[in-house]
Amino acid sequence: MTEQKISHLNSQGEVQMVDVSLKSVTSRTAIASGKVLLNPTALETILKQKNPKGDLIATAKIAGIMGAKQTSSLIPLCHPLPLQKIAIDIHLNQDNYCYEISASTKTNAETGVEMEALTAVSIAALTLYDMLKAIDKSITITDIKLVSKTGGKSDYNRK
Amino acid sequence: MTEQKISHLNSQGEVQMVDVSLKSVTSRTAIASGKVLLNPTALETILKQKNPKGDLIATAKIAGIMGAKQTSSLIPLCHPLPLQKIAIDIHLNQDNYCYEISASTKTNAETGVEMEALTAVSIAALTLYDMLKAIDKSITITDIKLVSKTGGKSDYNRK
Amino acid sequence: MTEQKISHLNSQGEVQMVDVSLKSVTSRTAIASGKVLLNPTALETILKQKNPKGDLIATAKIAGIMGAKQTSSLIPLCHPLPLQKIAIDIHLNQDNYCYEISASTKTNAETGVEMEALTAVSIAALTLYDMLKAIDKSITITDIKLVSKTGGKSDYNRK
Amino acid sequence: MTEQKISHLNSQGEVQMVDVSLKSVTSRTAIASGKVLLNPTALETILKQKNPKGDLIATAKIAGIMGAKQTSSLIPLCHPLPLQKIAIDIHLNQDNYCYEISASTKTNAETGVEMEALTAVSIAALTLYDMLKAIDKSITITDIKLVSKTGGKSDYNRK
Amino acid sequence: MTEQKISHLNSQGEVQMVDVSLKSVTSRTAIASGKVLLNPTALETILKQKNPKGDLIATAKIAGIMGAKQTSSLIPLCHPLPLQKIAIDIHLNQDNYCYEISASTKTNAETGVEMEALTAVSIAALTLYDMLKAIDKSITITDIKLVSKTGGKSDYNRK
Amino acid sequence: MTEQKISHLNSQGEVQMVDVSLKSVTSRTAIASGKVLLNPTALETILKQKNPKGDLIATAKIAGIMGAKQTSSLIPLCHPLPLQKIAIDIHLNQDNYCYEISASTKTNAETGVEMEALTAVSIAALTLYDMLKAIDKSITITDIKLVSKTGGKSDYNRK
Repeated sequence: MTEQKISHLNSQGEVQMVDVSLKSVTSRTAIASGKVLLNPTALETILKQKNPKGDLIATAKIAGIMGAKQTSSLIPLCHPLPLQKIAIDIHLNQDNYCYEISASTKTNAETGVEMEALTAVSIAALTLYDMLKAIDKSITITDIKLVSKTGGKSDYNRK
Repeated sequence: MTEQKISHLNSQGEVQMVDVSLKSVTSRTAIASGKVLLNPTALETILKQKNPKGDLIATAKIAGIMGAKQTSSLIPLCHPLPLQKIAIDIHLNQDNYCYEISASTKTNAETGVEMEALTAVSIAALTLYDMLKAIDKSITITDIKLVSKTGGKSDYNRK
Repeated sequence: MTEQKISHLNSQGEVQMVDVSLKSVTSRTAIASGKVLLNPTALETILKQKNPKGDLIATAKIAGIMGAKQTSSLIPLCHPLPLQKIAIDIHLNQDNYCYEISASTKTNAETGVEMEALTAVSIAALTLYDMLKAIDKSITITDIKLVSKTGGKSDYNRK
Repeated sequence: MTEQKISHLNSQGEVQMVDVSLKSVTSRTAIASGKVLLNPTALETILKQKNPKGDLIATAKIAGIMGAKQTSSLIPLCHPLPLQKIAIDIHLNQDNYCYEISASTKTNAETGVEMEALTAVSIAALTLYDMLKAIDKSITITDIKLVSKTGGKSDYNRK
Repeated sequence: MTEQKISHLNSQGEVQMVDVSLKSVTSRTAIASGKVLLNPTALETILKQKNPKGDLIATAKIAGIMGAKQTSSLIPLCHPLPLQKIAIDIHLNQDNYCYEISASTKTNAETGVEMEALTAVSIAALTLYDMLKAIDKSITITDIKLVSKTGGKSDYNRK
Repeated sequence: MTEQKISHLNSQGEVQMVDVSLKSVTSRTAIASGKVLLNPTALETILKQKNPKGDLIATAKIAGIMGAKQTSSLIPLCHPLPLQKIAIDIHLNQDNYCYEISASTKTNAETGVEMEALTAVSIAALTLYDMLKAIDKSITITDIKLVSKTGGKSDYNRK
């Protein structure tokens, strides 16, 4: 099954950056998502705040956008990419005691923007954690995954 | 209940960096953990590789350590801290089809090192994702949480 | 007049980082301020927006705080400092058609935190500029200055 | 008046990075300028230095060039751009007791390089401030503005 | 002899970033190399280690790859470039008591990737130094040079 | 011989950051040096320039100082340190057709500043290379080494 090869390992099993010089530049998109689970008391405290939907979420979104731009500095084998769009949506889901985060990215490049979308979600989640840790040390960041991507060899849609 | 206050919001509900100038410098530690879930085929591919425990894991560990050092650049309201130790452990748990990551951090400062440990885990997890995404697009990063911390107002041990 | 020496030039007139190893660690603060001047039409557009005091200002504040943490990476001869506090206040002064920005910083170090406060103001101002440039290309950033500092050889209060 | 929309706010008034994926890649330039005002005594001290035109100005220019390359890391909603040119000119205007700074930038991209030129001016100004603060705490950075830009939807020339 | 002009100095002898806006985008490669000299006792210690070819070398390679991506942030007059490939090879040459490092880079841009290859070698060498300094303070990093480059005005092959 | 242990490898031969939390904070210094070898024609071209001692050297010094401040971001297992001094000296040695670079660093920390001094030399050397590569592709960076260090368990002076 030729598909199943770890592209970041060479024939000696050593890590390598994938050479993308022979791939063509195409328009590519990716969407990733994740969750930040809160305990019930923390959720209540957040809901009682004056402006919790404002600055808390704006701060996490800005952090996610700025984090996405650092992806190739943070992830050793990622290629630096021009980014045409990074959009982050953060929603407080009261029924499930969690913040739901999703990030959408676009580029025009030889390689995909999945890692940028996943990094955006991760940094936004860590930022929510940081701002809420004083009221809930049991916060869990979970379910960070790729939702879809387009523009590469084959599109992907998570079922 | 005075404990339950979001320290990163001021009285107007605006975000703020907490002023730590009146807190005393103490020795502080934190441990965080997380998981990277694989599908069974991906696990099999990894196990068949020549050197999968070597370079894949070394790369993720290095990325986690370097990521931890960027915590205050990535998380908007984090204070820059001197770091005395960052140790990352990554273990391939075959029974549960996942990598288990844990990070342990130490500082001597006015504020804690939880975010550094959580950032180390997150960046190590994203790095594994990046290197394995060619064989498994359904990888999920999950269960990122604080395991314990010492040295602040009160110690914490997750139950 | 021995006071009047450019400390960042050595006896040959070459730039140098000042050696602070013989200065004692003290608690230091600084306050800086600046303005972003708008044309009347831009001000009107801002005032008509749904949420202009929210996200625009939160974004500029976050950028200023994060920029302050990059001061020693941006300004060649600045020493890296631990930062205990960075607070930014941004106020839309309708009478004077401008945003007024002020930043307050604290450290415990051998050298002052003026540059951190000034960098915070500058980056917050540039961020407002960036978000508003589509409605006003004539925006001017002006009056960036040190308001006060304490904790060094002598305190300073701008008259 | 449809022109007057804050492009960085979506319909809910939340900040967003503008999606430039549908804009075409064109050659773009920008010029920005700014001033660093000195008190008369500081100017005199500078003029008496052995090599003030050399290293002080070279350092501020280097800082401005390097700062311009960090624009998209510093300004939350800026797109990372390839930069084809960053030129900075710094001139000591003795009659007006100030340094005059101008920065000129070029790219070939979907969006403009104004922020890079403005960031270059701001960081060069802060660097002059830093090197001269020992002789003049009253230095003011002022008049940072866009002088001209070409290559976008419409050219701009400040009157 | 018109060839012999320092392109980074303007007609006044002031440093400048070269304007590449009129150069055409071409596929470009570069290879650089360098050495890390060890004393005989250090070499022996390394050879006796359980896993010295694994993690030591993987760490230095990762550092070199990540360092190459920071080239334009580190070298003042370098243009930010998209990078299509960074490959680093590190070999312990026991006969000559040294590590031999080579780095190969590729881009599609208006200007060359020599500095990225040379920076990769330098950071990989510094990383080996850092990890081995406890057993050998006399380590010397040497012979860092360009081996070849293609894609610019003229190709180069070091004799 | 207990001295001869690679401190950055644990008992399994895996890389690790050394835990410095039990080491005491002391005043530490380091000096490193290196050379940039030129061919005779390049040297001649440099000597004929109007202002070659000014901006070329100032730029390389600034780059070295700024590079030293990035040491812990570049070298994976380095601890972030407060830096009290970074001084760089660059001298054009005409008799030996080379630039001689030396860097001197100081801190007050649990661990040494050798890597900061070596990184300063390396980045200054790469910067000279970058600015001179148009007139000499055969430039070699060589002899980067630690000259001395004080303040740790034992002082070191290279013979």
